[in-house]
Amino acid sequence: MNASWVDVPEGSDFPLDNLPYGAFRPHDGDTHLGVAIGDSILDLHAVAEFGAFDEIGARAAFAEPTLNAFLRLGRATWRAVRERLQALLAKDGDPALRDLPRARFFVERGGVEMAMSLEVADYVDFYSSEQHARNLGSIFRPDAEPLLPNWKWMPIGYHGRAGTIVVSGTPILRPDGQRKPPDAPAPSFGPSAMLDIELELGFITGSEEIFGLVLVNDWSARDIQAWEYQPLGPFLGKSFATTISPWVVTLDALAPFRVAPPSQEPPPLPYLRFENDTGYDVCLTIELRSARMREGDMAPVRISATNARELYWTMAQQLAHVRSNGTRIRPGDLFASGTISGAEAGSYGSFIELTWRGTKPLTLPTGEKRAFLEDGDEVTLRGWCERDGLRLGFGECTGNIVAHTGVSSQER
Amino acid sequence: MNASWVDVPEGSDFPLDNLPYGAFRPHDGDTHLGVAIGDSILDLHAVAEFGAFDEIGARAAFAEPTLNAFLRLGRATWRAVRERLQALLAKDGDPALRDLPRARFFVERGGVEMAMSLEVADYVDFYSSEQHARNLGSIFRPDAEPLLPNWKWMPIGYHGRAGTIVVSGTPILRPDGQRKPPDAPAPSFGPSAMLDIELELGFITGSEEIFGLVLVNDWSARDIQAWEYQPLGPFLGKSFATTISPWVVTLDALAPFRVAPPSQEPPPLPYLRFENDTGYDVCLTIELRSARMREGDMAPVRISATNARELYWTMAQQLAHVRSNGTRIRPGDLFASGTISGAEAGSYGSFIELTWRGTKPLTLPTGEKRAFLEDGDEVTLRGWCERDGLRLGFGECTGNIVAHTGVSSQER
Repeated sequence: MNASWVDVPEGSDFPLDNLPYGAFRPHDGDTHLGVAIGDSILDLHAVAEFGAFDEIGARAAFAEPTLNAFLRLGRATWRAVRERLQALLAKDGDPALRDLPRARFFVERGGVEMAMSLEVADYVDFYSSEQHARNLGSIFRPDAEPLLPNWKWMPIGYHGRAGTIVVSGTPILRPDGQRKPPDAPAPSFGPSAMLDIELELGFITGSEEIFGLVLVNDWSARDIQAWEYQPLGPFLGKSFATTISPWVVTLDALAPFRVAPPSQEPPPLPYLRFENDTGYDVCLTIELRSARMREGDMAPVRISATNARELYWTMAQQLAHVRSNGTRIRPGDLFASGTISGAEAGSYGSFIELTWRGTKPLTLPTGEKRAFLEDGDEVTLRGWCERDGLRLGFGECTGNIVAHTGVSSQER
Repeated sequence: MNASWVDVPEGSDFPLDNLPYGAFRPHDGDTHLGVAIGDSILDLHAVAEFGAFDEIGARAAFAEPTLNAFLRLGRATWRAVRERLQALLAKDGDPALRDLPRARFFVERGGVEMAMSLEVADYVDFYSSEQHARNLGSIFRPDAEPLLPNWKWMPIGYHGRAGTIVVSGTPILRPDGQRKPPDAPAPSFGPSAMLDIELELGFITGSEEIFGLVLVNDWSARDIQAWEYQPLGPFLGKSFATTISPWVVTLDALAPFRVAPPSQEPPPLPYLRFENDTGYDVCLTIELRSARMREGDMAPVRISATNARELYWTMAQQLAHVRSNGTRIRPGDLFASGTISGAEAGSYGSFIELTWRGTKPLTLPTGEKRAFLEDGDEVTLRGWCERDGLRLGFGECTGNIVAHTGVSSQER
């Protein structure tokens, strides 16, 4: 691990080897792009104005409040900026910033609000974890083969709503919608009673290649989804909100954590074949804290732990599949993995799996039971990589559930 | 019908009562916004620079190459601009433009290329024609009730790909993809052999309300779609291209053509109830011209004629449904109706219906047969309204099919 002259606490998600990108908003200022280092954020707007990226041609991109202009510049520029930043921040690197006033270039991470780091162009959500697809198949179609015939031939996916993707920390309003229990004669309209999460990892593209990864919580109203999704797929059960982590961890930072993906049988068609290691070893957890736990000052409880290396279809395959029909990729496109579930019950990535559609509720340290999310619940996703003494992470992706507004279905 | 001092040929889609918005590109110039009047386009950038919209606060919006900034301004401004334009163009109106050089404010429609009039934010495609849903249900599930239980309770829809929406005239490359005939042991990869159209009408929103309508051709690769769409809905069978008409006809221009929608049974839930006439009487046609027809200088043949008043779910209901879960609408969102099919075979809005999945091919004037689209085929959608001597239209929405690139699936 390389050392920085900026203090990086032991176990931090943000050592010099990481340098993830995000957008931050000081209390009274404009939104700036920055990279996280330890407990600090290096202000890229300030560094660009200082002239540090002029030779790379990236000054203008860092005058923007989102990453989209930088995403357009492509991998050669992304790498050159990463090298420049590592040189500026390394103990044995370029001393240009070291003797200047700290406040000109750095802010404390804890002292600023994070903003959306990008304007999402199109949002695609895949369904690439075999265990998750098997679990949902078993729950929804108990008498049939859980995996549909196409699942092992292609990364199944669909388009989600780009306009309601929000940054970690944004409160999640419990959505209204139509629900119809199987035994009810007709649907009714009201707040979702089966509000769920989906633990996912997403990648963000430039014009043709992957830039970096974020944590994704694809909030899901299972009752709305179950009634609406035939035959065209999930719609309003998903479109109310999707949360992403504020920090985008670059593919270059993740290179040491590449692994071979699970073996694939049947062998994929040629356009989906990759020789190199296209999987990523990323530990992922879900933490839950209820309102009562917060009131009692209790720590969140970890309800699941899994790993992105479990994904059957890799990001490289997902992107190759999307492009196979000639579709244009745009800077700022977001592609999420779908829920990542491991083989055991404690490694499932959603409540519908963890509680088996509510039949096996979780018990919190307060004694409260959870089949699905209650108002006041706070969910936090975390992700990190660890190997040979090197550790880096994604920070957190959090959201808490806010009660329905109380407008009755009659009034709407 | 109000008369303009600009020449409007008899039967034109673009009388003074219409004034649809579009973006045009002179041979060597920047893209400008304009409104169509007769065979001319009034250059809104030039009119705005002249100061005509200063009191309305719309000058800056018309310096942009797309409508998105104008869409953000809302209905009061849209109406004020419409009134101003009608005054400037009416025979008995404001003479400000009349005595100035024509070339400063007008271009001939035939002499310019049209561009995308908006940057599409999110794209939603509905499934709101009962006849279309019944036809597809009968074709895909011949032994079951064609309408699924949810269909009469809500406007079924899904998100499509915003980034591949193109303007009329853009060539459509036949997409590659995975196809698996039911009797094949495994899928193969190659050019779609069941390339289809979908005749639709779409609406574009501001921040909260409908601005105007476009013709939409939602190109569909039925073989790719059939293999991929379970359980998450259409994806690559649709995402390669969607064509919209260059002209956006405003809701204000369409007001005289409002009609009562079909009666709904069961009665919709309260949030989907509207007292006023939320249907629109828009005649719609599909024309086809093969490469051989073009070579022989033969006119296109009309293969279908229907009307948007057939739609079971109206635009107002579609928008109310999308917003019912709290989803934010953005300026530039596009919502398409889904294929519009009438009761008779000659009024179906797609080849899969017109030829009943290829079992009843169409015969063209050349003697050529058509089950689905062949390379070189040109498809043109048209839409217009007519009542009490007033006629206005959408112009055309066209695309021609370009052969697959010839890269074999082995090489990809």
